[in-house]
Amino acid sequence: MKTDTVLLEHGSGGMLTNRLIREMFVGSFSNEHLDRMDDAAVVRVGEGRLCFTTDSFVVDPIFFPGGDIGSLAVHGTVNDIAACAGRPLFLSAGFIIEEGFAMEELARIVDSMARASREAGVKVVTGDTKVVPKGSADKIFITTSGIGVVEYASEVSPSAIREGDAVLISGPVGDHGAAILSTRSDLGMRTRILSDSAPLGGMVQEVLRTGDAVHFMRDPTRGGLAAVLAEAAHAAGLTFEIDEQAVPVREGVRGLCEITGMDPLYLACEGRMVVICEGSGAPGILEIMRSHPLGRDAAIIGRVTRKGTRGRVVLWTIAGGSREVDLPEGELVPRIC
Amino acid sequence: MKTDTVLLEHGSGGMLTNRLIREMFVGSFSNEHLDRMDDAAVVRVGEGRLCFTTDSFVVDPIFFPGGDIGSLAVHGTVNDIAACAGRPLFLSAGFIIEEGFAMEELARIVDSMARASREAGVKVVTGDTKVVPKGSADKIFITTSGIGVVEYASEVSPSAIREGDAVLISGPVGDHGAAILSTRSDLGMRTRILSDSAPLGGMVQEVLRTGDAVHFMRDPTRGGLAAVLAEAAHAAGLTFEIDEQAVPVREGVRGLCEITGMDPLYLACEGRMVVICEGSGAPGILEIMRSHPLGRDAAIIGRVTRKGTRGRVVLWTIAGGSREVDLPEGELVPRIC
Repeated sequence: MKTDTVLLEHGSGGMLTNRLIREMFVGSFSNEHLDRMDDAAVVRVGEGRLCFTTDSFVVDPIFFPGGDIGSLAVHGTVNDIAACAGRPLFLSAGFIIEEGFAMEELARIVDSMARASREAGVKVVTGDTKVVPKGSADKIFITTSGIGVVEYASEVSPSAIREGDAVLISGPVGDHGAAILSTRSDLGMRTRILSDSAPLGGMVQEVLRTGDAVHFMRDPTRGGLAAVLAEAAHAAGLTFEIDEQAVPVREGVRGLCEITGMDPLYLACEGRMVVICEGSGAPGILEIMRSHPLGRDAAIIGRVTRKGTRGRVVLWTIAGGSREVDLPEGELVPRIC
Repeated sequence: MKTDTVLLEHGSGGMLTNRLIREMFVGSFSNEHLDRMDDAAVVRVGEGRLCFTTDSFVVDPIFFPGGDIGSLAVHGTVNDIAACAGRPLFLSAGFIIEEGFAMEELARIVDSMARASREAGVKVVTGDTKVVPKGSADKIFITTSGIGVVEYASEVSPSAIREGDAVLISGPVGDHGAAILSTRSDLGMRTRILSDSAPLGGMVQEVLRTGDAVHFMRDPTRGGLAAVLAEAAHAAGLTFEIDEQAVPVREGVRGLCEITGMDPLYLACEGRMVVICEGSGAPGILEIMRSHPLGRDAAIIGRVTRKGTRGRVVLWTIAGGSREVDLPEGELVPRIC
């Protein structure tokens, strides 16, 4: 679908986002780093490899169960660095604030960012503040960028994925998306769903210390687990067979999905990591994840094969059938992050 | 002035911006890099020194005489890297776009960014796109972050400024501010004022190759030349004596200032660099600047002394008197960059 204007769906993390990035941004800025369309760029500077990434945060509401726009802005960028096997070092923070925003809320957000940074072991070393007239922005937007060092020697990218690899997820999916959704309307939920927003750098570094079995990592944010798997399978040109039963989903998230008709696979996470690794290395990596507080409910959810039409994700459903998992087409939850 | 809400003045680059950064951001994030309150952080990674910076751009209008939000977002960040003696290498770009924004305008902006990046010798290697519902943002905001390598051995900071140093500016001041102002109301100007928006990395690297005479650099954006000088004099604890007659100001900018009652010293530039260097090195550096296309109208505008109350900027006016130049107190032109 070619459109004359930018649609909400262009920011969904799905089909239209993918096309906008590919046709507009990669088309104009084309270089060996951007063309990979990863969430972060691994660049060589001097003798070392650095990972560089950015994310803008426009989440609504700015305070939500389990976090706020400040902690989210730290976790999101730290996790993008972790996903490219980087050890996060430094963050920058750009604030766009609406005139009239409460100073006390800004202070809470900045405190939350500071706490999240300390927990993640990164320093906010530079920043910028813009204030726009009332009505020109909604409350506050924060853009964080991050630098990390990449010490893991092997490549971590879709092209490193091999037949026989295992697909793991570090915990239940959809918590963040469900937490935001639950703030927007009274769905009569009895249990309060908390965002999973958390910094994954520590857990990922432990996983990487096991050796060179890790082939691919990505934190499933907008578009959820489905978008990450669909993009990776397509880029790898291989088939991912996912066992729906094995994908951890919290009771509350499942309930909310039943009420709203949403699929937890498409709901955003902000504290989970998809890891694709050598099949033989998977049990060891699962154990390491499970022994980490942020990976207690990690699971092996599928494997990489050459069956059927390649570049696809096949979901073996709980009901006993199978269906294809593709990039989301619409925008499920605007301003999810 | 303590306020309960964020005011436009908090984004002016003046007094309130300074206080917000000092009390809120430096207060919460405190670390050896941020506490310096430079426009960029110089961090050690492995064997090398990197410069890391970020800026959010909310300029209105997004297309203005001499540039657009895209080229400005590249120049602004590249110039912050140049100001800390860095050679710009990589940029990230985070887009926050209002639903319904014209795809054709986005394409023009992205093309302009790509062109500006090529000219500045940097690569846009990573990015992010968020779309917010109509009315939640005004058209488009762009946050760029940049990484550069710092090869210049000596310190470039206010604390390196010494008595006897010379103060230089690389060209006429206030062009960008005047260009934006002139788009906002019909001031009956006969001459069209163009923004000076330009990438200064090349010129600055030539200046730095002269040796170790450079002690301080800063590109005067929000708050103009006045804000840069006031902050640097305060941080250095020395007196800057500036000769108003020597400060280059274009005819059109002077005319606009006469009509509006504004002072060109407080109007933003986006393609100028303030350089403070050893007095003996100043003529050589001036010559290098003037032989560069972006520094043709460079001038020595003052010197650093210990006279009077230190930490102040004294302007010797064209009328023959003197007055103190301080940080701007109000917000002259909201959404200037």
